[in-house]
Amino acid sequence: MSAQAPKITLLAGGGGGAKLAIGLAAILQPGQLSIIGNVADDQEFHGLWVSPDIDTITYSLAGLIDRSKGWGLANETSRTLEGLARLGSDDWMYLGDQDFATHIYRTELRRQGVRPSAIAQTIARALGVTANILLPSDDRMQTEVKTARGWLSFQEYFVREQCRPEVLELRIQGLEEARPTEEALAAIRDADLLILAPSNPLVSIGPILALPAIRNALEKTRATRVAVSPLIGGQTVKGPANRMLKAAGYSCSNLGVADCYRGLIDSLVIDVSDSADVAALQARGLKTLVTQTLMSSDADKACLARELLAIAGLAGTGLASQLDQPERVSA
Amino acid sequence: MSAQAPKITLLAGGGGGAKLAIGLAAILQPGQLSIIGNVADDQEFHGLWVSPDIDTITYSLAGLIDRSKGWGLANETSRTLEGLARLGSDDWMYLGDQDFATHIYRTELRRQGVRPSAIAQTIARALGVTANILLPSDDRMQTEVKTARGWLSFQEYFVREQCRPEVLELRIQGLEEARPTEEALAAIRDADLLILAPSNPLVSIGPILALPAIRNALEKTRATRVAVSPLIGGQTVKGPANRMLKAAGYSCSNLGVADCYRGLIDSLVIDVSDSADVAALQARGLKTLVTQTLMSSDADKACLARELLAIAGLAGTGLASQLDQPERVSA
Repeated sequence: MSAQAPKITLLAGGGGGAKLAIGLAAILQPGQLSIIGNVADDQEFHGLWVSPDIDTITYSLAGLIDRSKGWGLANETSRTLEGLARLGSDDWMYLGDQDFATHIYRTELRRQGVRPSAIAQTIARALGVTANILLPSDDRMQTEVKTARGWLSFQEYFVREQCRPEVLELRIQGLEEARPTEEALAAIRDADLLILAPSNPLVSIGPILALPAIRNALEKTRATRVAVSPLIGGQTVKGPANRMLKAAGYSCSNLGVADCYRGLIDSLVIDVSDSADVAALQARGLKTLVTQTLMSSDADKACLARELLAIAGLAGTGLASQLDQPERVSA
Repeated sequence: MSAQAPKITLLAGGGGGAKLAIGLAAILQPGQLSIIGNVADDQEFHGLWVSPDIDTITYSLAGLIDRSKGWGLANETSRTLEGLARLGSDDWMYLGDQDFATHIYRTELRRQGVRPSAIAQTIARALGVTANILLPSDDRMQTEVKTARGWLSFQEYFVREQCRPEVLELRIQGLEEARPTEEALAAIRDADLLILAPSNPLVSIGPILALPAIRNALEKTRATRVAVSPLIGGQTVKGPANRMLKAAGYSCSNLGVADCYRGLIDSLVIDVSDSADVAALQARGLKTLVTQTLMSSDADKACLARELLAIAGLAGTGLASQLDQPERVSA
């Protein structure tokens, strides 16, 4: 990579964020891409530290993700979890046998005092990932969801309760004590293009932005700042973002997404099915790109990645050169 | 079980000890049998606390042991270990996927401050074991083996180096600080029959006896005290006991085994192939029973168990009643 190669930093949760990470990695050279992942979904299971969003990003970029589920490793077995259930442990959080290796390894290094950021990078490198996977903080910060039955951890709400309870409130335990990592701040400061992935604005991107120094870095960066809306046709592709937007007092629309990111982005990329939102978004001073944001195939992912680079006047390499130019409707 | 039912306590390592435990459990009622296992083979792997001898006993009594290997669970897979190897971890210590569940569970409870003894009992109960599996100590005590290349942990010597290096010396790290458990002391004090299993006298039974209060309890117990020699034809069935006896200054024979247990046993059970040793053993004041000590089948195990009960004038129930009376040569 030349010294002049532009730097792209992606803020991402799991699902859509991981898909966009695949697209970006496909058109960028090793070292160009940094991904600041979400650690507020982390939770300890069976005494092991599980970091679902970071693992989804890592497994996706390593080509090991279970593509049908969008999380976990492909071709998994569940013998260890079955063994734990036989011993009387809860097994509502699915953890596959090879996935357990990641959690065991991470937990061992954490107990040895290795920084969580360094662990994430070590795991990524061991699995062949060349992008930089960064943590917003090495400290514990955990999203909690208030329901009629009280506060739940994010995984209790998301996995155990399958997002069924009404969301009354969200909070991030540990936020006040959490310090940002130098790597994350540098990746925001030094980026040419800063992308907010089409992940849940409140519980995936939100916890990253909740760190004041990260928010401040985003406000000050010289990078072109683009968010990709997670909504398609005004709805979430997957997950509870729509109900969470409502619970947090935002409209469940691209305008609500824009409000979440107020002051932090220059452009918003929305799906063709939501093109009616363009005027209202522009009225808020946002450049708006209307395109196909649903990433079903690898070609879709690389197309969207290439469009994002184009917004910042950058060009990718690799896969994208083999793809048709996507149809763009720039507003 | 009636209040009068005799109590049998077995001191055991893995292999032969676990086989005899199966035999005893088959002819005794639930609650009659207590087994004090060896914890000095324990070692942390991947940040998880592995207790090979205790697990061998537990899995054996649960009917889950891999009978072809004599350790580990039957029908195991090794996806978690493969995952750890992919991350760069050592994988010379084989740990199967369901076995990992045990280590994860044990480690979680240890970190929560649960006594190792209580954990062992909880695991045993969860797997359907009715015998009492007791630890000699809740404290850390680990056998180390001195070789020409320096001190090795027991598992490094036994598994990684496959017992190849010459044994120069043995020691137990942590022995001086280790306190015996009340349960182990009570099981020795209250037993009617106290059996030292045909396990390695130095690294399986030895670490249990190395605790002064346990040795003292053995000296004082009203129980009939019987050891089963691990030697057959003057050789070990499996493992490095013969070379260790020599390294520790004992003769590699039933006389050496008797010397290891001097003052702690009333009777020694030896194999028919070693009947020539009877006179010398009797000269040391030991009652000697000559029988078939190799336990190939479940019938063998129950037969030997029944013979041990007979030495103390006790009779078993269950399986043994369905078996032919074993041929006995009492000396």
